[in-house]
Amino acid sequence: MTPRHVQLDGEGRLRHFITTEGLSRQILTEILDTAENFATVGSQKIKKVPLLRGNTIVNLFFEPSTRTRTTFELAAKRLSADVLNLNINTSSASKGESLLDMLRNLEAMGSDMFVVRHNQSGAAQFIAEHVAPHISIINAGDGSHAHPTQAMLDMFTIRRHKPDFTRLRVAIIGDIMHSRVARSQIHALNILGVPEIRVVGPQTLIPQHAAHLGVHIHHSLETGLKDVDVVMMLRLQRERMEGALLPSAEEYFARFGLTQAKLALAAPDAIVMHPGPINRGVEIDSSVADGAQSVILEQVTNGIAVRMAVMSLVLGRGPRSEEAAP
Amino acid sequence: MTPRHVQLDGEGRLRHFITTEGLSRQILTEILDTAENFATVGSQKIKKVPLLRGNTIVNLFFEPSTRTRTTFELAAKRLSADVLNLNINTSSASKGESLLDMLRNLEAMGSDMFVVRHNQSGAAQFIAEHVAPHISIINAGDGSHAHPTQAMLDMFTIRRHKPDFTRLRVAIIGDIMHSRVARSQIHALNILGVPEIRVVGPQTLIPQHAAHLGVHIHHSLETGLKDVDVVMMLRLQRERMEGALLPSAEEYFARFGLTQAKLALAAPDAIVMHPGPINRGVEIDSSVADGAQSVILEQVTNGIAVRMAVMSLVLGRGPRSEEAAP
Amino acid sequence: MTPRHVQLDGEGRLRHFITTEGLSRQILTEILDTAENFATVGSQKIKKVPLLRGNTIVNLFFEPSTRTRTTFELAAKRLSADVLNLNINTSSASKGESLLDMLRNLEAMGSDMFVVRHNQSGAAQFIAEHVAPHISIINAGDGSHAHPTQAMLDMFTIRRHKPDFTRLRVAIIGDIMHSRVARSQIHALNILGVPEIRVVGPQTLIPQHAAHLGVHIHHSLETGLKDVDVVMMLRLQRERMEGALLPSAEEYFARFGLTQAKLALAAPDAIVMHPGPINRGVEIDSSVADGAQSVILEQVTNGIAVRMAVMSLVLGRGPRSEEAAP
Repeated sequence: MTPRHVQLDGEGRLRHFITTEGLSRQILTEILDTAENFATVGSQKIKKVPLLRGNTIVNLFFEPSTRTRTTFELAAKRLSADVLNLNINTSSASKGESLLDMLRNLEAMGSDMFVVRHNQSGAAQFIAEHVAPHISIINAGDGSHAHPTQAMLDMFTIRRHKPDFTRLRVAIIGDIMHSRVARSQIHALNILGVPEIRVVGPQTLIPQHAAHLGVHIHHSLETGLKDVDVVMMLRLQRERMEGALLPSAEEYFARFGLTQAKLALAAPDAIVMHPGPINRGVEIDSSVADGAQSVILEQVTNGIAVRMAVMSLVLGRGPRSEEAAP
Repeated sequence: MTPRHVQLDGEGRLRHFITTEGLSRQILTEILDTAENFATVGSQKIKKVPLLRGNTIVNLFFEPSTRTRTTFELAAKRLSADVLNLNINTSSASKGESLLDMLRNLEAMGSDMFVVRHNQSGAAQFIAEHVAPHISIINAGDGSHAHPTQAMLDMFTIRRHKPDFTRLRVAIIGDIMHSRVARSQIHALNILGVPEIRVVGPQTLIPQHAAHLGVHIHHSLETGLKDVDVVMMLRLQRERMEGALLPSAEEYFARFGLTQAKLALAAPDAIVMHPGPINRGVEIDSSVADGAQSVILEQVTNGIAVRMAVMSLVLGRGPRSEEAAP
Repeated sequence: MTPRHVQLDGEGRLRHFITTEGLSRQILTEILDTAENFATVGSQKIKKVPLLRGNTIVNLFFEPSTRTRTTFELAAKRLSADVLNLNINTSSASKGESLLDMLRNLEAMGSDMFVVRHNQSGAAQFIAEHVAPHISIINAGDGSHAHPTQAMLDMFTIRRHKPDFTRLRVAIIGDIMHSRVARSQIHALNILGVPEIRVVGPQTLIPQHAAHLGVHIHHSLETGLKDVDVVMMLRLQRERMEGALLPSAEEYFARFGLTQAKLALAAPDAIVMHPGPINRGVEIDSSVADGAQSVILEQVTNGIAVRMAVMSLVLGRGPRSEEAAP
């Protein structure tokens, strides 16, 4: 069973959102168009619509993340849903009930959606395969597998600045190997028709099979950035530094840190993105993060609208856009 | 002062819900009938009614329990109440204010209801005796004393399958001695007119005075299950195994674990219940827990409706059933 | 830049609430008058008004305080706002993003207000100086600097019992040196025209410069209480006892603990206040705390109305009182 089949219902509509891999351009475009409708909600005086009133959304976080949980909680509340936050300590799971028994109980309580975060790749799909038919699963990050709502808020942000995906050069820079964000971004960019996707990083942090994903591999930031329209930085996990994969933070910054000088190699109107939280002076210089080409805070704002869109789409509620591209 | 007097107001209506002990058949039936009205809410698209809008319900948990807290939080939110979750660490209580000062403060903030969970028997009643007249207390489990909403959701589940309590044989199986659930179940079954209640377990886990509660004691699962209509399993606390009260989990399962073979001794249409979380392979075999006679997940679903009913009744709000039995 | 300028907008209206220092009598009176309008909400059946519906209020607590967080959470919910609770462990802040990056992110998510609690003096003002124009900051206590909503609920409680501030003698008793509550009270009492403010405590707990604040210093409880109309007790932090600043709790109580006998020295209709939680038998005798002259629990009730008033005023929403004094 491919992930594609798990996420779609019999009529090909989105029912879970586990990964961007294998989805159609039409589905991704529908998410982006729906998010456009929600983007105005965040700037209204009353930032709330009654679409999911009386629905119960459970934030099921097996890996703690205040930041991601907060964005999903806000999106759910602005859709007028009731939100339950459950932080599950997997190390003490042996004392309690099994994962499946826990799911069965939350289902029986009348939950409508689980937003799942887990440090094991495949956890969200496993839950989607075992959940009752009336529940939708949204993957809020599973191991190094996928983080599809992050990728879609990135696509939304790109489209607002560069409306035609089919004319873009995009570079993704950093620890491609361990990044669920990069994986979901690459699939989404490919599906939306981006002709040139580059991954840039040291050899130890780019997987051997990356070329199979339809990307170009660069081990030099200078060649990687040349003439790109979109620069997507990744967060460098500090624990990589402690392993054998990386030299010091200083050395990493010297080779792959994004500075104004390096950015000048990209197209003059290139935008700079980062999923946050940023390590200033490690993967990105402060002057770039806070500079005129940075759209990092726009990404955060767009993240609420995109999550509202995904939540309302998987539950089969409007506002569906009439103009969804074929 | 008997518990009965604490829970009822001057006109004999439920004002707190501390224990099933001493309540009338009319009151218990009113809870069940009211819960029937709420049971449909959980299957609506909009699982919400405005009955307790603008009310403040405080989950006052001196003993952590994500599962029980979640069911009360969901019930309160589906009644449109505002919910505060307070987890109070009793071991560090000496640093803070006294329990009574804390109650006085929560009262002064305009709370309407405290849902109390405590590891000491009598805590909920103590609080009910000392609380301001405008506050209602619901006992969400106190020591080994009582867990009345669990007992009422069990009664609700039984009645849906076996409408006439006065013709039933019921067996409660496991650690009767330490179980607040069993205590509340026995009182409720007696009040509702069940003619034969059996408690089944090893001698070390059945209190000497159990016979005074109007139950029949069985130390053999085989005789205990014979021809019963309802099988109510209890959760075996793992710490009992570490004390001197019990041999190994394997030995317990061999003697008192519910298997398909043992269940065949009960009436052919007997239902199997468990308050959860279940210990598969300790007190119950997975094939029984997930089998055709199991109503364990129905209990979870019914728990929301029953808690909504109790919350709305103690606050004197409808929908009161007009058909409440005398 | 004085704090006054940070809190007011170009038209002199309250935009943040960081400190009572430097505010006009008109502003403080407007808060009190607005709170009168909200005080009735707490005693209604439906304790809720739709004023801040669709607004997002973030409780940003760098110092844990269940009690204070609860009062702000209740006030926000009664104004129909959406509330996010974020407890930030400052000791592990180095692992995450910087404070400013965190603020930028919460701003970008469409927050309208941060309620800030921090153990460093000046933290709330620092945040107010760096926050986006659409966000309001309310100081819920910063180090030993200020706790302005506590001071205003105290003023509200005083005015309900003693309507004319210009005829009052007020004594503040206890650890003046370390108390953000005392500092905010002294400023508010001065601004509202109280002619005689006394601070009472041992020499080690009254700052040398206290006289500059326009207060009279007393090191004897007997002289300090003589003929006062309002007795404002402070909570004694137990850690002071462990340092060199104080003898034992018993000795402190003997010299500065408020007993019925000592209270008899004040005016016969004097009221007794305390910000809570109270240390019975340390700074106040139980018979006084629970006695006829105590308004301690009224303070708690009034705290909700005053916080609702401040929240709605800084966001520029009514009900603004038409009768605000000049």
